[in-house]
Amino acid sequence: MIDKLVEQIQKKQAPIVVGLDPTEKLIPDYIIQNKVSEFGETLEAMGEAIWEYNKGIIDAVYEYIPAVKPQIAMYERYGIPGLIAFKRTVDYCKDKGLVVIGDVKRGDIGSTSAAYADAHLGTVKVGSKTHKPFDEDFATVNPYLGTDGIKPFIDVCKEHKKGIFVLVKTSNPSSGEYQDKLIDGKPLYEHVGENIAAYANDCMGSKYSYIGAVVGATYPEQGKILREIMPKSYILVPGYGAQGGKGADLVHFFDKDGLGAIINSSRGIIGAYQNEKYAHLTEHGYADAALEAVKDMIADIKSALN
Amino acid sequence: MIDKLVEQIQKKQAPIVVGLDPTEKLIPDYIIQNKVSEFGETLEAMGEAIWEYNKGIIDAVYEYIPAVKPQIAMYERYGIPGLIAFKRTVDYCKDKGLVVIGDVKRGDIGSTSAAYADAHLGTVKVGSKTHKPFDEDFATVNPYLGTDGIKPFIDVCKEHKKGIFVLVKTSNPSSGEYQDKLIDGKPLYEHVGENIAAYANDCMGSKYSYIGAVVGATYPEQGKILREIMPKSYILVPGYGAQGGKGADLVHFFDKDGLGAIINSSRGIIGAYQNEKYAHLTEHGYADAALEAVKDMIADIKSALN
Repeated sequence: MIDKLVEQIQKKQAPIVVGLDPTEKLIPDYIIQNKVSEFGETLEAMGEAIWEYNKGIIDAVYEYIPAVKPQIAMYERYGIPGLIAFKRTVDYCKDKGLVVIGDVKRGDIGSTSAAYADAHLGTVKVGSKTHKPFDEDFATVNPYLGTDGIKPFIDVCKEHKKGIFVLVKTSNPSSGEYQDKLIDGKPLYEHVGENIAAYANDCMGSKYSYIGAVVGATYPEQGKILREIMPKSYILVPGYGAQGGKGADLVHFFDKDGLGAIINSSRGIIGAYQNEKYAHLTEHGYADAALEAVKDMIADIKSALN
Repeated sequence: MIDKLVEQIQKKQAPIVVGLDPTEKLIPDYIIQNKVSEFGETLEAMGEAIWEYNKGIIDAVYEYIPAVKPQIAMYERYGIPGLIAFKRTVDYCKDKGLVVIGDVKRGDIGSTSAAYADAHLGTVKVGSKTHKPFDEDFATVNPYLGTDGIKPFIDVCKEHKKGIFVLVKTSNPSSGEYQDKLIDGKPLYEHVGENIAAYANDCMGSKYSYIGAVVGATYPEQGKILREIMPKSYILVPGYGAQGGKGADLVHFFDKDGLGAIINSSRGIIGAYQNEKYAHLTEHGYADAALEAVKDMIADIKSALN
């Protein structure tokens, strides 16, 4: 799957991923009102609204981007109907040829991590039949429990040709509270990065490993160091746009050939119609606004890389 | 909710929680076969099997225990039908007066943690109506992202009188890989514990805080230290029984009055019928076996505390 991701990035000349993180504030009001008219003031109405909203964006942008990253929390917030919308979104994106990174940040003790890995990347058997519960292509994983919480994900990736991005240095303001703490003279995130580099060596696609890392766009200096520590790993970089990261900050996350990193934007794309720059497209043009924002983001990163 | 938990522990004289972590290996075969006959070899069949299995156990043990801890990964593994079984289990346990600890180990950047907090402990509005998506009483939270990933959970707990248990020192063999690393002369888990103690002071029930901690039964020495660092926090202690923790190891997790800790057992209770000691009850007596195992566990802990 890492080979498909790299191939799609090269083909579309776009090292970006669109974060499908639908919230009530981002979904145009007319979509929610339509669904409430049909389904009442229910969680089902919000599940349907999320799905219609996502489908509009996916249809508008899929030819220009290699991958999407739905943040499952935004779906889980609407309970079972929200998670049904998550699954429909994953399936639809895969039908459109997109690589799907499930931003699930799961991680637990070994046997429990194995259950999460089956849920999101693997299969489960019921009698003689094999099912794929959520079936993303990649998942994000939390490292706090150590290697035996990560290993079951790696095993499932090997078997099903999937991949993971392990949290190393996250984009939020307080990420340094534990991640920056010095251990034997090096911050915790470097220790995590070194372990990922070791896992990555055993899990190679044709050029990159399918064991990647998450490093926030808001921490470009750390990105530079981690790029060197994990030469075989793709780096998933959240925090561009709405969280404050800019194209120029991103250069050091990439290799010299412009590969090795994929930059995520969520609100900046899916809520573009709310930004002054694209407001002329109106909420009914939310998908067109997303496409314009995608093109602008690709141009911004391209100019930073040149 | 912490007051209800303490009250139930005192009333039932049982500082234990039953982990409802259903797996194919634990659910009696006749239950799965019945559901497959009715629903085919589908995820729905497994969702129904999980629900019937859980209901049998809950009906047998609810009068003897204060709380249950469903591990959501075991439900998520069966996709949407599995999560429907999770929700039915949460609702049924609450109807029976049990405190429900959702073992979800969520944690993300602020706005995303807020969505998880709403999903598991809070409410969401659709138009004029308020919904409770999963509505557990407590949730477990991963601290790797720092305070701004935990704060949204605390806010929702305050508003809805719920609680959290933050991972401090987990029960798995490789938990020390990062958690034990020395920072300024102290292991990372102590730094996390000190922060929890600070949150806990601002979030008090009548005697204990509703901000608790997870510390594995497999690490009794660390439990002793963390008990002192976090005097106001309840400690949720997994790893008893199947993972190797014993009653005698648990003494130091408790305060002098026998409160302050709640010990979880999952496989040891819900899969008791597979243990030689209770095998005479057969798989059809799985719920009776669970009850016997609950009584034995309570006696083991009581004798250790005396």
